[in-house]
Amino acid sequence: MGPVRPGVWKSVGTLADGRDIIYFDEAPDTGRAAVPDTRPLPAERCPGDTPDAGLRWDALRGEWVVIAAQRQDRTFLPPTHECPLDPSRPGRPTEIPAPDYDVVVFENRFPSLRGAGHWPVDAAPELTGPAPQTSPQRAGGVPIYPETGGVAGQPGYGRCEVVCFTSDHVASFASLTPRRARTVVEAWADRTAELGAMDGIAQVYCFENRGEEIGVTLHHPHGQIYGFPFITPRTAMMLAQAGEYAGRTGGNLFDDLLAGEIAAGTRIVTRNEHWTAFVPAAARWPFEVLLFPAQRVPDIPALSDPARDAFCDIYLDVLNRLDALFSMPLPYIAAWHQAPGQDAFARTEFGLHLQVFSIRRAPGKLKYLAGTESGMGVWINDVLPEEAALRLREAG
Amino acid sequence: MGPVRPGVWKSVGTLADGRDIIYFDEAPDTGRAAVPDTRPLPAERCPGDTPDAGLRWDALRGEWVVIAAQRQDRTFLPPTHECPLDPSRPGRPTEIPAPDYDVVVFENRFPSLRGAGHWPVDAAPELTGPAPQTSPQRAGGVPIYPETGGVAGQPGYGRCEVVCFTSDHVASFASLTPRRARTVVEAWADRTAELGAMDGIAQVYCFENRGEEIGVTLHHPHGQIYGFPFITPRTAMMLAQAGEYAGRTGGNLFDDLLAGEIAAGTRIVTRNEHWTAFVPAAARWPFEVLLFPAQRVPDIPALSDPARDAFCDIYLDVLNRLDALFSMPLPYIAAWHQAPGQDAFARTEFGLHLQVFSIRRAPGKLKYLAGTESGMGVWINDVLPEEAALRLREAG
Repeated sequence: MGPVRPGVWKSVGTLADGRDIIYFDEAPDTGRAAVPDTRPLPAERCPGDTPDAGLRWDALRGEWVVIAAQRQDRTFLPPTHECPLDPSRPGRPTEIPAPDYDVVVFENRFPSLRGAGHWPVDAAPELTGPAPQTSPQRAGGVPIYPETGGVAGQPGYGRCEVVCFTSDHVASFASLTPRRARTVVEAWADRTAELGAMDGIAQVYCFENRGEEIGVTLHHPHGQIYGFPFITPRTAMMLAQAGEYAGRTGGNLFDDLLAGEIAAGTRIVTRNEHWTAFVPAAARWPFEVLLFPAQRVPDIPALSDPARDAFCDIYLDVLNRLDALFSMPLPYIAAWHQAPGQDAFARTEFGLHLQVFSIRRAPGKLKYLAGTESGMGVWINDVLPEEAALRLREAG
Repeated sequence: MGPVRPGVWKSVGTLADGRDIIYFDEAPDTGRAAVPDTRPLPAERCPGDTPDAGLRWDALRGEWVVIAAQRQDRTFLPPTHECPLDPSRPGRPTEIPAPDYDVVVFENRFPSLRGAGHWPVDAAPELTGPAPQTSPQRAGGVPIYPETGGVAGQPGYGRCEVVCFTSDHVASFASLTPRRARTVVEAWADRTAELGAMDGIAQVYCFENRGEEIGVTLHHPHGQIYGFPFITPRTAMMLAQAGEYAGRTGGNLFDDLLAGEIAAGTRIVTRNEHWTAFVPAAARWPFEVLLFPAQRVPDIPALSDPARDAFCDIYLDVLNRLDALFSMPLPYIAAWHQAPGQDAFARTEFGLHLQVFSIRRAPGKLKYLAGTESGMGVWINDVLPEEAALRLREAG
């Protein structure tokens, strides 16, 4: 098999319970995908066969909520010698059968959403109410559950994958080489394209949760990829704003936002030829950085090779600045905002960007979402965005 | 001065820096409001005079964000003998000058929003961009900040009040007598009416944050009341859903949701003649309870006397069930969802309800908002709502 991109070779295997595992290697012919998974795992369940999981329609807010009760028992902060994301060793099989890997992606053993890529969307029997909609707006026709006496809602159809950035248990994304970061970008691009093409998937979301402070249950450096069966509330909001902005000004919201930030200058953290990292004017989190490409594209697969290389440089720089802020590893969430695959407006108007933010506001102090945020959706930020940008510039 | 309601007497004083303090006493003629505040405090600042605070328009999401950098230095978990919410003692003046109180409300010394009730809304000079809108939708006309090079945004006009439920430092809302809880209800009703009538206030929000796990910085049992200069995103969403539902079915969303939950029965926690407490079908939090009145009203001031009494009974019951779940005080957020005061549709169609929810999913385990929630607005709940309701029924 040839490389998916110069220097990156992809091979696909299957875990004992039928889940897919995809290796992204930095050398050809590693043979890793052929290493069998010897564990006696029960077969993966069809999404229609999981009464403890599913989608429910929140009629008061007009949004889907994912119920995933079986995840309550998922692996929780295991000791280092039991890490399920390490490569397998003789006598200690893990989620990754191969004895080593560069970047590896596999389907989550405790998924919130399941089935895509294995069962057609109509193999998930309709339990109560209509099928998941591709747009929250169109889902407005859904009856409120109590009207139908419905309990179970919709099957939790979709896909949840795990991305291991390195086989080194004690590394972090910030400590990766640019070469390895680039391999991760290739994995994100590949999974975005593959999941986006699956029947029933409306949107692909690549992200990383880092730090126990935000509930990370495995320390091994890894991220996640979700294939959602609907367009998420956040993305729907951005599309609505972009549409409103285009209608009012004739311009593109993402382009004008970036141009405005460059012109203002006060919130820029760092730039290179292909990317700009800035703290948004209306930052919600004590430290929040948006990374926008100079050339707007809808999603990661649409990034050029030079833009992919340049992303690795600027992102590693930004992550190291974040860790330098308090001279300790910063808990953060890194969220790729991508255009939904089947939305024509989004393909032409949405602007791919990465949002990375932390809940730490000072050593020993975290930003909590309390009554105003969790009750009313009003964020209160204790850190002036221009001050945050200044500190991140100085942390370089 | 006569009672504001049978058995509740209100009197108004002024703190050393000009902030209002309002006592709600269970006996007449306490003289508490006349006790002077002897502290040498600097005068409160006008909202236009706070360059480190203000509102910013998030152009990507179409929402206001509150920047309140001066709060970074607010009182943080003081030792018990320095609690600023205890009554004053000789030689130890606190925020409450009187030597005792029943329920007391005062303006927050570290407010996110300020000025309402003291300065007219046009005394807050326009720094950059348009004035705060009464509706996020109408605010769609706001230019994105970088276009104007604006940094400071809008003044943080509004009002933040603190409500102390009892002078007993180690009590909790759940430990209040029904009589005292009723006095708190009178305070909420009074402040909702007063703040709602102030120039520039679009919505009044009464809430309580309880527990260090959600960032509470003072242990003394207290809640907060915000007067927002805009309709909040959450309320705007509910109004949009109620409008869509009315247009499609001719019915009222809140009425039909409640009737459906009563008919389904599986998520009911407890009921009395005037209130129903249930876990919503699409609960977002491990333990989440909605309290709906049997007779729909837009806000707390519109509740009848019997409904106010019955609320105290059921709410104290629900709070005690929540604390019984894990045999420990449960961290929670209690959020009153009220109709905006000046919105005609909301006055007739919105249904007042209390939402109380916890981030605790098991002893030693919290629900964190990570990549899916904070990045995409998609909630994943590990606890089946029917199971949560069953456990809360059994905890009674």
